[in-house]
Amino acid sequence: MDDVLVSVFRAPHSYTGEDSVEISCHASRYIGEEIVRRLLAAGCRMAEPGEFTRRAFLNGKMDLAQAEAVADVISSTSAAAHRVAFNQLRGGFSSELSALRGELVEMTSLLELELDFSEEDVEFADRERLLSLIDRTRSHVDRLAASFKDGNAIKNGVPVAIVGAANVGKSTLLNALVGDDRALVSEVAGTTRDTIEEVINLDGLLFRFIDTAGIRETSETVERMGIERTFRKISEAEIVVGVLDATFDESDLLNNLKLIVEKVDVAVQKLVICLNKVDLVADAMVNKFVIMINEFVSRFDFKAVIVKSAFKRQIGLPELRSALISLKSHLLDCGDSTFVTNERHYQALLKTSSSLANARRALTSGVYSDLVAEDLRLAISSLNQILGQDLIDPETVLHSIFRRHCIGK
Amino acid sequence: MDDVLVSVFRAPHSYTGEDSVEISCHASRYIGEEIVRRLLAAGCRMAEPGEFTRRAFLNGKMDLAQAEAVADVISSTSAAAHRVAFNQLRGGFSSELSALRGELVEMTSLLELELDFSEEDVEFADRERLLSLIDRTRSHVDRLAASFKDGNAIKNGVPVAIVGAANVGKSTLLNALVGDDRALVSEVAGTTRDTIEEVINLDGLLFRFIDTAGIRETSETVERMGIERTFRKISEAEIVVGVLDATFDESDLLNNLKLIVEKVDVAVQKLVICLNKVDLVADAMVNKFVIMINEFVSRFDFKAVIVKSAFKRQIGLPELRSALISLKSHLLDCGDSTFVTNERHYQALLKTSSSLANARRALTSGVYSDLVAEDLRLAISSLNQILGQDLIDPETVLHSIFRRHCIGK
Repeated sequence: MDDVLVSVFRAPHSYTGEDSVEISCHASRYIGEEIVRRLLAAGCRMAEPGEFTRRAFLNGKMDLAQAEAVADVISSTSAAAHRVAFNQLRGGFSSELSALRGELVEMTSLLELELDFSEEDVEFADRERLLSLIDRTRSHVDRLAASFKDGNAIKNGVPVAIVGAANVGKSTLLNALVGDDRALVSEVAGTTRDTIEEVINLDGLLFRFIDTAGIRETSETVERMGIERTFRKISEAEIVVGVLDATFDESDLLNNLKLIVEKVDVAVQKLVICLNKVDLVADAMVNKFVIMINEFVSRFDFKAVIVKSAFKRQIGLPELRSALISLKSHLLDCGDSTFVTNERHYQALLKTSSSLANARRALTSGVYSDLVAEDLRLAISSLNQILGQDLIDPETVLHSIFRRHCIGK
Repeated sequence: MDDVLVSVFRAPHSYTGEDSVEISCHASRYIGEEIVRRLLAAGCRMAEPGEFTRRAFLNGKMDLAQAEAVADVISSTSAAAHRVAFNQLRGGFSSELSALRGELVEMTSLLELELDFSEEDVEFADRERLLSLIDRTRSHVDRLAASFKDGNAIKNGVPVAIVGAANVGKSTLLNALVGDDRALVSEVAGTTRDTIEEVINLDGLLFRFIDTAGIRETSETVERMGIERTFRKISEAEIVVGVLDATFDESDLLNNLKLIVEKVDVAVQKLVICLNKVDLVADAMVNKFVIMINEFVSRFDFKAVIVKSAFKRQIGLPELRSALISLKSHLLDCGDSTFVTNERHYQALLKTSSSLANARRALTSGVYSDLVAEDLRLAISSLNQILGQDLIDPETVLHSIFRRHCIGK
């Protein structure tokens, strides 16, 4: 019923590691469906979601972290997200974890050895060396765990809150960004009806823009609630874009600026101020406003990027894009650094770190070596869970001792 | 940036007959676009629409009729349409045309030979044999041309007009057919706003249903125009489904039936009468109506299929489907018979037939052989146009003479 190309992959040289056959047919819905129908009639069954990758993992073609990266690679929509996922697929993350685990296994081996020879009162493990090994490993684990925030931003978009009073041009700004070339990646429903989120790809990095309800001082309860939500959104953002209206008079503008700046956490958030509608105001006034904004912001001990804009006329848009990208350029210029992008991995790393902290405490407080070894085994087990291996077999630890140390007894 | 599967096809063992490379990447839009971007940056260019098949034709991997079938195979949405297109792709149609052309070339050769030896007054071609060859070939060509109507129905759907007075259940019938499993293939805008066409796949055969405005006798000009359109639609259909309302009184029902039957051309169209809303009427009345319809229709010297239905309650739907399929079962049970589905081929076949008719006339009226040969060459040329070959080279005809006849002079 069709001329097809059949590719035969002999085990283990296939994706799953098993004998596999791929059929490439003409790109017709009818033909595709008919081929599937005939294969099913001949006794085949449909694969389950992710079954090929699951088989690849079960057959040892990749570890669990790599298997998880397959889905991330496929769903990547930006250069940065793709690079991080592909690095994980190629085993970059896994080999880093394996190296860490290797060190922990070696420490545990030394401690286990002591236990075996405990009656002879031997101390194989140099306590100082052990402590420094634990500290070094833990700091590495913590560094990986800390990358989760950036990893998450790379994968799901850097959260950017757009804030300002009503009608200053927040939605126009968002529309201008979205309309700009083919940047729009997706539009996701915000957690409340008051917020719209759009994910936009700017030069290879995703930004998740959160349009918020206009903020202003109010005593009305209902409006108060909407504004509270806006404030919550601001606290979740990594960049706050504050939009001011250049047609406001000086005191209104300053008041708006104050409302925005007060809500920005200098320690964790970057601020970009867009002085919008500059096309409707004399240049002298615009420049006066810029100086005023700079002066006000510097009081809060951080420097905001200020963009003169008229989004309805596409003025200031390139400057805003550059500002956003340069604030997060470290996510683009990170070479092959590992970023944790997976909540499961993140949680396992936190557990690893906590087990290592316990091991350190046990070691310094002079408890029995077997308790220290137990903490280290928990740390190893957490790392194993990322790679998809079962809890470590004590036999493996012993094997590691005798292979490495060759005591020959 | 991805782990891909690269397949290398060495000339001539590729679709186009040239060296080819196929890259299979992970199914990600980003990766696909990025690979194309990098290939373009490296000096590749995008293929033009149909370019691979065009190259396959130019490199002699397939003739023009086969190349045209590729698009038909891909767009097939029913078993019958797919079978006809695939038969053409596999060269079934082409080999039939080549056989016909072979016979014409042989006739022409004989005539050309006479011309070469004209001074010697030789007559190589047996006039009677030539005439019978022409008749046989022409009847074959006419048979192929006549298959265009069925071929078109297989490819685009058997046109079925649904007619009846307003509110008798025409749209309900169409909706019931469409809603029935995943039968709907496409919804195409009718040529007028008054008609809706829907293509539905019934057991492997496409039917193109044309819902028409209600017909009734009227004197109003505007409505008259709509009804004229309906009548035109009926004349284009191969099957007319007339819907009658069983809740009508006898004379109204008969009047409606009369309006429908009068417009059906017994010679070319099949009639299916649906006596609808039978659930609202006593069985005795329904049976009386059925006898009455049968009696009325038989006056017109053809047998209509009568279906008792209540489409709102899905009653009569399977019977209607079976009736439609059985009326066109010859399109399903035709094995590998060739159907012409392409207007260009149809026109070329008509031209071939007309050239053969001219050749026959010339032959019987005793004109010079070279005029007969000219008509035959035109017939060959028309067939060649289907296969995509240029006008036949006279040298080729000569070559054919000397190769076959081996005169050795």
